[in-house]
Amino acid sequence: MGDMTTTVNAYAATAAWGADAPLTKTTIERRDVGPNEVSIDIKFAGICHSDLHTVSGEWGKVKYPMVPGHEIAGIVTEVGSDVTKYAVGDRVGVGCFVDSCRECEYCQAGEEQYCNNPGMIGTYNGVGRDGQPTQGGYSDAIVVDENYVLRIPDSIELDKAAPLLCAGITTYSPLHHWGAGPGKRVAVIGLGGLGHLGVKIAKAMGAEVAVLSQSLKKMEDGLRLGASEYYATSDPDTFKKLRGSFDLILNTVSANLDMADYLGLLKLDGTLVELGMPENPMPVPAGALIFGRKSLSGSLIGGIRETQEMLDFCAEHDVTPEIEVIEASYVNEAYQRMLASDVRYRFVIDNSTL
Amino acid sequence: MGDMTTTVNAYAATAAWGADAPLTKTTIERRDVGPNEVSIDIKFAGICHSDLHTVSGEWGKVKYPMVPGHEIAGIVTEVGSDVTKYAVGDRVGVGCFVDSCRECEYCQAGEEQYCNNPGMIGTYNGVGRDGQPTQGGYSDAIVVDENYVLRIPDSIELDKAAPLLCAGITTYSPLHHWGAGPGKRVAVIGLGGLGHLGVKIAKAMGAEVAVLSQSLKKMEDGLRLGASEYYATSDPDTFKKLRGSFDLILNTVSANLDMADYLGLLKLDGTLVELGMPENPMPVPAGALIFGRKSLSGSLIGGIRETQEMLDFCAEHDVTPEIEVIEASYVNEAYQRMLASDVRYRFVIDNSTL
Repeated sequence: MGDMTTTVNAYAATAAWGADAPLTKTTIERRDVGPNEVSIDIKFAGICHSDLHTVSGEWGKVKYPMVPGHEIAGIVTEVGSDVTKYAVGDRVGVGCFVDSCRECEYCQAGEEQYCNNPGMIGTYNGVGRDGQPTQGGYSDAIVVDENYVLRIPDSIELDKAAPLLCAGITTYSPLHHWGAGPGKRVAVIGLGGLGHLGVKIAKAMGAEVAVLSQSLKKMEDGLRLGASEYYATSDPDTFKKLRGSFDLILNTVSANLDMADYLGLLKLDGTLVELGMPENPMPVPAGALIFGRKSLSGSLIGGIRETQEMLDFCAEHDVTPEIEVIEASYVNEAYQRMLASDVRYRFVIDNSTL
Repeated sequence: MGDMTTTVNAYAATAAWGADAPLTKTTIERRDVGPNEVSIDIKFAGICHSDLHTVSGEWGKVKYPMVPGHEIAGIVTEVGSDVTKYAVGDRVGVGCFVDSCRECEYCQAGEEQYCNNPGMIGTYNGVGRDGQPTQGGYSDAIVVDENYVLRIPDSIELDKAAPLLCAGITTYSPLHHWGAGPGKRVAVIGLGGLGHLGVKIAKAMGAEVAVLSQSLKKMEDGLRLGASEYYATSDPDTFKKLRGSFDLILNTVSANLDMADYLGLLKLDGTLVELGMPENPMPVPAGALIFGRKSLSGSLIGGIRETQEMLDFCAEHDVTPEIEVIEASYVNEAYQRMLASDVRYRFVIDNSTL
């Protein structure tokens, strides 16, 4: 006992992902539960763009083999001796991090995602307290400290819960932080995995929602999901027509956009929040901020408390993502389709197929 | 009567300002006061960097001859028949604008500086309601609607009041808007006309203030003015040492800075506010905003109500600018010295020398 581990199935990247280096089926070891930990039988794992960026090596060094996946939904199968929050059989989730320092001012404030000592421990491609590399949700099971586990409300199916753990909180947190609600006009740039949840959540908060998409291709979807307006950003008239229109804009697109154009769409005191990570710095003319006291901001997922709040909000307001459930062996094809923006709106792995 | 005007002395640019095109002494016509207007005997006019940018043609088209000056302090000499707020003999000021549409949502909200219909009417180089070019404070007198006039508290000397009308409100407004006060750490980038007032006002609001200056040359001044810390930005250690230190940073420098470095100095939810107008767009890496939910924002002077509030605040807290009073004929040399950052900290024209 003590140093025992359990071997579980997983899909891992063994080198920078690409056509000649696909994710492949493998096994990994999971540690036994410690006193404060729970073991989770992973039922579903969402596929996030971050997975793709990370396995491709675009976001810095990767320790291969590496199992991605930070949108995890499953059932508790074992609890450590000191666990108080969860019991065997509970429906739970794990998001983008599995630990943090717990001591810095941000951890203390429940904003663990901004931990600065030295930072949150990612669900994958991080290093856990045990000194071992963390491995993510494309696997049969995971062992996590109970304080970094979320409770999934009964009314949300596990497959639909999975994407809420990253895409859901990534959009919920800034909408909540910047006060989306009745009387507020919110625009969402990009109708993808993040964007479609942004639309649903903003609508559920009571805001008026517009989608700003490259084309009108997904317009019908956007309106069905809760947007009251839908505009093509390829049409220059969009930027004239909507000038000074929005209180809040969420940018879910990682491509470099013309920031002056988009900042021009904000009202006085409006905020444009970056959620994606464009490769290059964004050129921002100071005048686009000064005339209208506007803000260009960023937001990173959410803390544990807020993630739980988001799950409860989604249950209450019947907000769930639109998903395409896939078998694990389809993961490389799913990645290719994500690169082609060919998914409505989130792939979710059925982990029983691992 | 009706179409009468008064001829007053002034200093005007007759072409894009430069060594071979100085401001020169001239006369301009001021209209008679309308029912809602007051005529002001201008005692002092501050010299703002905006004056220099504008007369040089750097900020767009200029209609020459043009009289700059939007930091105006003087005495009411005549009031129109419907004026209720001011009487002859009152000590008053005029700032960066002399009118606005009065109807748009921002004018209605008392944020006339953000008027969008089509915009505030600048104190100079604008076009007034009478269709005539507006001419600024480097002149003997000005006629302004009473609603765009400020009352200068008795305890503030008129020469020291002048720079408050632009430099004062430009720093007061963002400090107030973003909650500078006890328990907040504020940094001011640049110790010039704006910066030195930013330090004084932030200190008076109860914040802890640091100056970030290129060198330590003005350190003694900075500490005397109210900063508790002073750092050289030419020293790369400054950015390591101060990482994650500030709630609010005011950037009073118009040069293009490395935004990632400066955004790194902010705490979680911190804001860096641009007050100057760098010539080129600022390259902003999204990650510098996302990790820490930071904001890059801008702010433009303040509305009439807030400008009055600022003047009253400065009177109450004994905040006034450090000034060098000059004769009008010295204005071109003053401009040259401003270009060389050789002024501590604001030139103010004694208009009796016009």
